[in-house]
Amino acid sequence: MQKTVAELAALVGGRVVGDGTRVITGVAAVTEATETQAAFLLDEYMAALGQVQAGVVLVEHEPEDTAGKTLIVTDNPKWAFASLVRVFVPPVQAPAGIHPTAAVDATATVDESASVGPYAVIGPRSRVGARAVLQAHTVLGADVSVGADTTVYAGAILHDRTEIGERVIIRSHAVIGGEGFGFATMSGKHERVPQIGRVVIGDDVEIGAGTTIDNATFGETSIGRGTKIDNLVHLGHNVHVGEDCFIIAQVGVAGSTTIGNHVVLAGQTGVSGHITIADHVTCGGKTGVIGSIKESGTYVGFPARPHRQWGRIEGVLNHLPDLLKRVRRLEKSLLKENE
Amino acid sequence: MQKTVAELAALVGGRVVGDGTRVITGVAAVTEATETQAAFLLDEYMAALGQVQAGVVLVEHEPEDTAGKTLIVTDNPKWAFASLVRVFVPPVQAPAGIHPTAAVDATATVDESASVGPYAVIGPRSRVGARAVLQAHTVLGADVSVGADTTVYAGAILHDRTEIGERVIIRSHAVIGGEGFGFATMSGKHERVPQIGRVVIGDDVEIGAGTTIDNATFGETSIGRGTKIDNLVHLGHNVHVGEDCFIIAQVGVAGSTTIGNHVVLAGQTGVSGHITIADHVTCGGKTGVIGSIKESGTYVGFPARPHRQWGRIEGVLNHLPDLLKRVRRLEKSLLKENE
Amino acid sequence: MQKTVAELAALVGGRVVGDGTRVITGVAAVTEATETQAAFLLDEYMAALGQVQAGVVLVEHEPEDTAGKTLIVTDNPKWAFASLVRVFVPPVQAPAGIHPTAAVDATATVDESASVGPYAVIGPRSRVGARAVLQAHTVLGADVSVGADTTVYAGAILHDRTEIGERVIIRSHAVIGGEGFGFATMSGKHERVPQIGRVVIGDDVEIGAGTTIDNATFGETSIGRGTKIDNLVHLGHNVHVGEDCFIIAQVGVAGSTTIGNHVVLAGQTGVSGHITIADHVTCGGKTGVIGSIKESGTYVGFPARPHRQWGRIEGVLNHLPDLLKRVRRLEKSLLKENE
Repeated sequence: MQKTVAELAALVGGRVVGDGTRVITGVAAVTEATETQAAFLLDEYMAALGQVQAGVVLVEHEPEDTAGKTLIVTDNPKWAFASLVRVFVPPVQAPAGIHPTAAVDATATVDESASVGPYAVIGPRSRVGARAVLQAHTVLGADVSVGADTTVYAGAILHDRTEIGERVIIRSHAVIGGEGFGFATMSGKHERVPQIGRVVIGDDVEIGAGTTIDNATFGETSIGRGTKIDNLVHLGHNVHVGEDCFIIAQVGVAGSTTIGNHVVLAGQTGVSGHITIADHVTCGGKTGVIGSIKESGTYVGFPARPHRQWGRIEGVLNHLPDLLKRVRRLEKSLLKENE
Repeated sequence: MQKTVAELAALVGGRVVGDGTRVITGVAAVTEATETQAAFLLDEYMAALGQVQAGVVLVEHEPEDTAGKTLIVTDNPKWAFASLVRVFVPPVQAPAGIHPTAAVDATATVDESASVGPYAVIGPRSRVGARAVLQAHTVLGADVSVGADTTVYAGAILHDRTEIGERVIIRSHAVIGGEGFGFATMSGKHERVPQIGRVVIGDDVEIGAGTTIDNATFGETSIGRGTKIDNLVHLGHNVHVGEDCFIIAQVGVAGSTTIGNHVVLAGQTGVSGHITIADHVTCGGKTGVIGSIKESGTYVGFPARPHRQWGRIEGVLNHLPDLLKRVRRLEKSLLKENE
Repeated sequence: MQKTVAELAALVGGRVVGDGTRVITGVAAVTEATETQAAFLLDEYMAALGQVQAGVVLVEHEPEDTAGKTLIVTDNPKWAFASLVRVFVPPVQAPAGIHPTAAVDATATVDESASVGPYAVIGPRSRVGARAVLQAHTVLGADVSVGADTTVYAGAILHDRTEIGERVIIRSHAVIGGEGFGFATMSGKHERVPQIGRVVIGDDVEIGAGTTIDNATFGETSIGRGTKIDNLVHLGHNVHVGEDCFIIAQVGVAGSTTIGNHVVLAGQTGVSGHITIADHVTCGGKTGVIGSIKESGTYVGFPARPHRQWGRIEGVLNHLPDLLKRVRRLEKSLLKENE
């Protein structure tokens, strides 16, 4: 695959600075790219432009000194670069059709353009949409629907009644729609409350490897369109996540909590159940959210505090042993005085 | 399936208030239930009884004003409700027998009433009890025993020598009996210590999706009857968990720790190895237990503190930056005085 | 299998004290071992030697009073004991050959001494080395290589281009080489940046059950030789881990972070992205590493602090409510004085 710099600029809606006829055949990290490859460089690193060897560099602004490099100026070089990666490294197409070893229930419906891999299992009345891909060893229970252009990676499991939108990516060993953790306790013994709801995943969602999203007691556990969820995340029954969120690795959200749109929960954050997190809230890694957050902003620590407040407290904590000594000294002084 | 209110009351050992002849055909959340459905309402929400549309409401106490609703009065409405869910939404029966694609070792024994799904694998000398269900893609190693009425969900793995009791539920992609994390270090290099023990799971235990429970160096890693374990939990080699505990999502317990009965470890709690947690201890979410806990009660934070103490410390932490200033002012005042 | 004490001593390079002709047929925990079994006892427990029933005890030093026991004196009893376990409890050999139900791509290469289990799937151009074992339900994508004597436990998945060294152990449901969590955000919407790098696992590495290691944006995510990784760990794209590290259960390391050699990250530790951790750093359980650590030593807490400093701060925290009162009293005293 080869494209000229001018063609690539047109593709990403950017402006050429330098030689638009140069031929590009691939992409690479900016520290590694050679003269036939494209790379990107954000504003804060532009000082290093002179050392870059890439055939074309995607940048945010045209610098005074281009160091003789060929550039494509674009508002969002990283986003544009993602587009170029897809041009030069197209994803492998899975062959349409159902592998002979796949066990597909007679009442299930699989679009003829979909791809179902070795040892996949599809349960009663489930539906697989156009160009969807179920890799080897994926398992769909009963009454599951998988939307068009969705990819389910090897070993992922979608339990009964799960509804998956279009262009969704579900990675290996994710478990979607398993029974929520619901019990009634009588005389110290825990009796299971059957969870008869389901999970609904919106379009363009990504769900990471090993992530578990439980079905609802009744109704739905839902993930809004465009939200991206990382590996080993746990979302409990009746959780509702909004659109375009980032839920990073190993986050846990307890049942019946509602998360707004454009929320970012950094790695290992934990969120209590039955609370609400407003739109545009960001939590730093390992944050412990134990009460509703109503204002957008950044929160850190356990319990979660607005990040400036957390920073101030942490700053004083470093001096705490010394503070104790200073208070003792004050007490001694005052005692002396009062003698 | 339809039942009268009177029949349902008899089933759960409750007392009818209102029309016992009313016909009920299902269950729902109390905010959604219609006049042919049952729901439950706890004491703290009874003020909302007037807005409830359910055909019958399970309650703890008969209110002065029943708002014309039909009620079943019972000690534990949630528990009683769980029973009704099972009446109206019975679990799907898996067909008895071994799927033709299951790979069952010749020396393994599978009860004729058990159900073994597509692509399940059962190793040498393993035993599967009456009415047990192994879903698609489950794997049993050698010398594994699965008790009567136990369900193993798709993709779960029970490694060699694992012993599972009766009426146990093991959810998708759980890994039970994998080798414990044991090493001997010589000159900086880590040599594996083979773990030749096993895991024993008591009756009525539930183990969540993706949870890992490692086998013992020698002897057993054990989970006591009735304990319920959520998703993505890790229990290390030689851990012993008592009866009727709740181990919530993403908890980690390091090796050789013993946990008592009726213990609750909330989500993302971490417990050091080689310690003991007494009966009736509850740890809040994200608690870090780094030493034995000998008294029942509630513990929070890292390191774990009795929850009132933790609350008092957190209260003062909010004022810490201000406390620093106040100490400085005191020092200045005292200095001035001494001049 | 039986060996004399003298033969065992020769095997581990130790010195016999007592009866070298005694016959040993197995191993056990020191509290359980009988007179035909070997056990080990570290210095700090030597006071209990009199109660030990084992036929031979591996110890670090010959005590004044051997209590009539037969001993093997060796520098590292635990390491020596691991060797004896392997003598008496040799691992089960998986039969060489490819199970008839394994789906092996025509372009893949599997050494004739390797073992490929039921329903394993091996993708295009992948290579499986001598005496390697792929258990049931393992999945190799395209262009994966598995080195000699490596074992991949049931259900583990190695995605495209993953390179596994020799004598590696990958436990059940690990997902190696899944796509890293990379996105470019444009007008609030997150667009995936394809991750076209790969994961490289060094010789003698162990990777625990359910652990996820993501591939690199470009280049490699790498784990150095001899490093041992526990269950449910997450390592993000472009992470580099050195040699002979211990990464304990449920640790999370964000992308592009580099970890040195002989590093220990205890359970549930979280490490930010784009930082560096020096050689010989140890982090206690639940540590939150949010900036580079340049000096070897032990670190605890969130944010990570040198462990003595953390200990001092925690010590004063217990007295914090009281400190507040003492400051108030000082303020009152000073006020009184100034009246």
